[in-house]
Amino acid sequence: MKLSRFGHKFGPGAGINSLMEDLGNALAEGGLIMMGGGNPGFVPEVEDALRQRLADIAADPDAFRRLVGIYDPPQGEKRFIRALAGLLREQFGWPIDERYIALTNGSQSAFFTLFNLFGGDCGDGEFRKILLPMAPEYIGYADAGLQDDLFISVPPLITELPDNRFKYHVDFSALPLEKNIGAICVSRPTNPTGNVLTDAEMDHLIELAREQDVPLIVDGAYGLPFPGLIFTPVKEVWDDHLVLCLSLSKFGLPAARTGIVIAHPDVIKAVSAVNAITNLAPGSFGATLATELVESGEILRLSQDVVRPFYQRKAERAAQLMGEALAGLPFALHVPEGAMFLWLWLKDLPISSLELYQQLKEEGVLVVSGHYFFPGLDLPDWKHQHECLRITYSQEDELVSEGITRLASLVRRVYAESGAG
Amino acid sequence: MKLSRFGHKFGPGAGINSLMEDLGNALAEGGLIMMGGGNPGFVPEVEDALRQRLADIAADPDAFRRLVGIYDPPQGEKRFIRALAGLLREQFGWPIDERYIALTNGSQSAFFTLFNLFGGDCGDGEFRKILLPMAPEYIGYADAGLQDDLFISVPPLITELPDNRFKYHVDFSALPLEKNIGAICVSRPTNPTGNVLTDAEMDHLIELAREQDVPLIVDGAYGLPFPGLIFTPVKEVWDDHLVLCLSLSKFGLPAARTGIVIAHPDVIKAVSAVNAITNLAPGSFGATLATELVESGEILRLSQDVVRPFYQRKAERAAQLMGEALAGLPFALHVPEGAMFLWLWLKDLPISSLELYQQLKEEGVLVVSGHYFFPGLDLPDWKHQHECLRITYSQEDELVSEGITRLASLVRRVYAESGAG
Repeated sequence: MKLSRFGHKFGPGAGINSLMEDLGNALAEGGLIMMGGGNPGFVPEVEDALRQRLADIAADPDAFRRLVGIYDPPQGEKRFIRALAGLLREQFGWPIDERYIALTNGSQSAFFTLFNLFGGDCGDGEFRKILLPMAPEYIGYADAGLQDDLFISVPPLITELPDNRFKYHVDFSALPLEKNIGAICVSRPTNPTGNVLTDAEMDHLIELAREQDVPLIVDGAYGLPFPGLIFTPVKEVWDDHLVLCLSLSKFGLPAARTGIVIAHPDVIKAVSAVNAITNLAPGSFGATLATELVESGEILRLSQDVVRPFYQRKAERAAQLMGEALAGLPFALHVPEGAMFLWLWLKDLPISSLELYQQLKEEGVLVVSGHYFFPGLDLPDWKHQHECLRITYSQEDELVSEGITRLASLVRRVYAESGAG
Repeated sequence: MKLSRFGHKFGPGAGINSLMEDLGNALAEGGLIMMGGGNPGFVPEVEDALRQRLADIAADPDAFRRLVGIYDPPQGEKRFIRALAGLLREQFGWPIDERYIALTNGSQSAFFTLFNLFGGDCGDGEFRKILLPMAPEYIGYADAGLQDDLFISVPPLITELPDNRFKYHVDFSALPLEKNIGAICVSRPTNPTGNVLTDAEMDHLIELAREQDVPLIVDGAYGLPFPGLIFTPVKEVWDDHLVLCLSLSKFGLPAARTGIVIAHPDVIKAVSAVNAITNLAPGSFGATLATELVESGEILRLSQDVVRPFYQRKAERAAQLMGEALAGLPFALHVPEGAMFLWLWLKDLPISSLELYQQLKEEGVLVVSGHYFFPGLDLPDWKHQHECLRITYSQEDELVSEGITRLASLVRRVYAESGAG
């Protein structure tokens, strides 16, 4: 089988694909303790609300026909978009309307589109990069460029804190603004670290985006205003240089694949156009299921009062268990400020995080090796990249406990065997 | 807003995008008679079966969780894939299993992936084209190449038949096999013409694919074995050089966006890999809704006994009405052998089909100008390309009748004003 360049870049040989297959198959087939994926937990009150809505649709032939039987326009389901624009206008005062929102088949599809709209070959020999102001950053970005070397990133400042904690900050002094930048992108909260960029950091990034006249893409898949997996008091941000990407996945609908792009109408037109050519139209399912929750504002209440506490409790519990299990070892946890991951830094780890991942899989626990989360960084000697693990705590408490126990036991053995522990 | 080359090719400026917006918005908002899109009709028995299935899922918390709450692997929903492989093996004796099937977010997504996997820059300066053996061919392919000039096609042989009918055939003698071909692609039935390639034509194309050692991509979105919108007795085809693309859209689930690729496992691995990077995973909704219909084989019975007759009756009715309405004018209809379109050839039309489309829109009827359906053809003087319309007959009978009446009245006026009618 002869493949094109695209086929070689995006096909079976692509960097993260074997890992994703691994994770997907493990979760779908069961057996392993899954602390590797981004699958959300199951929040009963949210499940009940959505299931009731589905039952209502199934009982109403007209509603069912609208759910399955009519293609949406490339921009996405109109009633959902109208409701969301209204909610954001009324709740937060953002000056937006229906022209500011497009749907995609999940966030990943939105990022593929956005990165390639703003980055890459621009004609006349000009090549624009996507700047990730702080690595670690989301693994899913790494392979999304149609052209090689689309991303450029810089390491963070690391603040070490008491009780085996640390926090990353953007190193603004190191940003390569002299390069040709097409867009800036951050996830907030950060996948994989659970870091939440401060309001001051966001203001600074928006200022940079304005200065450079490029979009600041904010990946809010776990963030504000929904699903709201942010445990520190920060504010919702809007600016006309922002491209805010939201998702219904972590609210509870990952298999519905509903990504949401909120941006200036020119960006929305471009996203819709890419939707049309690559997908004809995005799916209606997630949007239709959630429309009434958006119209009533209930999606914000559920996010703040139900979904966020669900994950915050899990985060605190997992962090405490991890601290106890690793006591005495040279580890640090990134302050768990959001998302659904612990980011564990094993200082001077005698083996690479990739080897640790593989050994841990043998023990029946799946995590993700941290080295995947440094897209666009060219610092081969920075060993921190090979000393971290991303550990998902969204699944059931007993599984998370057992996974942490097995992980700590392996880590203790690894340090002990090298004489470093 | 500064866009990349990709942004310019796939963004708002892309050829077919304004048309698609037009069609999508018209159907979603109502008012116009929609004979332009590919939206399927509403088949009560199919709607009832699917709606009952949805109600069952909504009544079962575990089933609901599987529907919305768990990411599928990049290859797609496992139970559906297993069921479909079993059905095809048992019913048609195809030697396939789960490794031969991947799902995508609709057919359009599958074609974007397949065309760019097999066509385009292959390194070393080699550029492979996608051969469309017969134009007219589907409009949705035209802009799907990441690189320009991805497609090459040839005009058909035209057989004129009694009663203002004609039929296209592949002109095998004209195929540019001396070019560097990465894959061959046909839709069967053909969108836009309703032509069905004969079994002999399919055998010949498979033979060519084997000789060239490239895949033959068969777009079966309207075809066999489901939804079965083929009104002539032809056979289901399988070959290990085939890449058969099916869809649940025309069976009745367009908004669920479920595309199905059936091919050699090497192709399936590549499609899954592209899914992972561009979409994380395909949506579960359509597959989950249809799984039991596939497990029981009911999807084939409904396709043959319910869906096909539904469209065949509409095809015959629309063709007869059109014939009556245009009596005396120099027109011909492509034999309506499948899909859900009439392909109307208005010989020596005094204005272009695009101008006719625009005038007809003023009369409240949307069709699609035929000139869009000649991707890869470089024959500016072949006026046939500007003398055809694609007219969808899937909607309610009264609307179809009214649309045909208005169309015929306009066409008669256009011919009369030029003195040609």
